[in-house]
Amino acid sequence: MPRGIVEKLVDELSKLPGVGRKSAQKLAFFILNMPEEDARSLAGAIVEIKEKARFCSVCFNITDGETCSICRDTLRDKRRICVVEEPSNIAVIERSGGFNGLYHVLMGALSPIDGMTPDRLKIKELVDRVSSDGVEEVVIATNPNTKGEVTARYIKETLSPYNHVLVTRIAYGLPIGGDIEFADEVTMKKSLEGRRAL
Amino acid sequence: MPRGIVEKLVDELSKLPGVGRKSAQKLAFFILNMPEEDARSLAGAIVEIKEKARFCSVCFNITDGETCSICRDTLRDKRRICVVEEPSNIAVIERSGGFNGLYHVLMGALSPIDGMTPDRLKIKELVDRVSSDGVEEVVIATNPNTKGEVTARYIKETLSPYNHVLVTRIAYGLPIGGDIEFADEVTMKKSLEGRRAL
Repeated sequence: MPRGIVEKLVDELSKLPGVGRKSAQKLAFFILNMPEEDARSLAGAIVEIKEKARFCSVCFNITDGETCSICRDTLRDKRRICVVEEPSNIAVIERSGGFNGLYHVLMGALSPIDGMTPDRLKIKELVDRVSSDGVEEVVIATNPNTKGEVTARYIKETLSPYNHVLVTRIAYGLPIGGDIEFADEVTMKKSLEGRRAL
Repeated sequence: MPRGIVEKLVDELSKLPGVGRKSAQKLAFFILNMPEEDARSLAGAIVEIKEKARFCSVCFNITDGETCSICRDTLRDKRRICVVEEPSNIAVIERSGGFNGLYHVLMGALSPIDGMTPDRLKIKELVDRVSSDGVEEVVIATNPNTKGEVTARYIKETLSPYNHVLVTRIAYGLPIGGDIEFADEVTMKKSLEGRRAL
C-alpha cells in the first residue's frame, strides 16, 4: 500500500520535538482544513528560515541580515550586554521585559568533558566588544546549572582586566507564582541566600 | 523593529492547534537546526497536502488519486465496510489493527439542530455501495456520543431493506461522550472485537 499524502505529512510532523504520532495526525488534519494561503505561509516560513537564517556578526543572535534587529535598534541601551548560551534564550528574556540592552550569544556553555572548551564559545568576541564599545555592564544569563555556572565564572575571570565593566549574574530564587512547598532544596537555599531588605 | 524570520515562523506555528507561543518558539529553533533537507520535506508535505488532497470517489477518505489507497488495496476484505464520521477516524482504526475491510466516511454526523440532515451526509453513497457491491457487513463506527448514536440508528434503519447485510456497531469499550480521535489502540481494538448486531 503506497504511503498517502496524509501519512507523509504525519511522518514529517512526527519528527518535531514533543509531537507524537497522534498529535501529528491532529496537526495534519488541521493543516488539511486550513485556508491554502495559511498553509503556504507556514511552509514558506519554514523554507525561509532555513534559507536565510544566519548569525548576527555582532552578537550571534539569529538574523537574516548582517546584524540582528536588536543590534540595529537605536533605542536599546548599548552600555549593557546580556550573555546567553543560545539564540533561543534571547526570546525568553525579551518576553520578560526586564532587559533593554544588547545580547551576546556564546553558542553553548563550557563543558571540557564534551569538548566544549573556551575557544569553542564566542568568548573572544565578547571580550572584543567589552574592550572597544563603552560597555558598562555584562549581565551573565547562562543557565542555572553546573555548565552555566562554570561558564559564568570563566567569563567573570576573563573580563577581570576590564575593571570599568561591572559583571553581574541573574538571580537565583523561587519562580514567581510558584509554591514553597514544591521548591527543591538547592533553589530554596539560593533563594534564602539572595534575600534582600524590603 | 522589523519582524524577523524567527518571529515570522513562530507566528505561523502558533496558529496550529495546541501550539502556544512557547512551544512555537521551541519548534522554530528546532526547525532552524534541522538538516535543510528535512525542513524542505516538511514544508513540501504541507504544500502537497493542500495542493493534492481530495476525497476518494468511493469512500470519501483523503487521497491524492481518484480512489484512496485502502479502496485500491486488493488484500482488503471488500465484504466489510466500516462507517466513520471523519477521514481522520480511519487512521485510528487502522492503527488498532482490528479491521481489514473498507471504509465509508459520512463527512459528519446527524444533528438536525445544526442543519446536519441525512442529505448532508454520504448516506446515499453508502446505500449505493451496499446495494451493489456484495457487502456482507456494515460496521458502524460513528462516535460514541448522541450524534454518533443517532446516526448509527438512522443508518441501521436505512439499510434495513438490505437484509443480506449485517449491520453492526462497535462496542462500548470507548468512554461514553468521548471522541474516537483520542482512543488508544487497545481500547479501539477491543471495541472493534466486541461489535454486535444492531
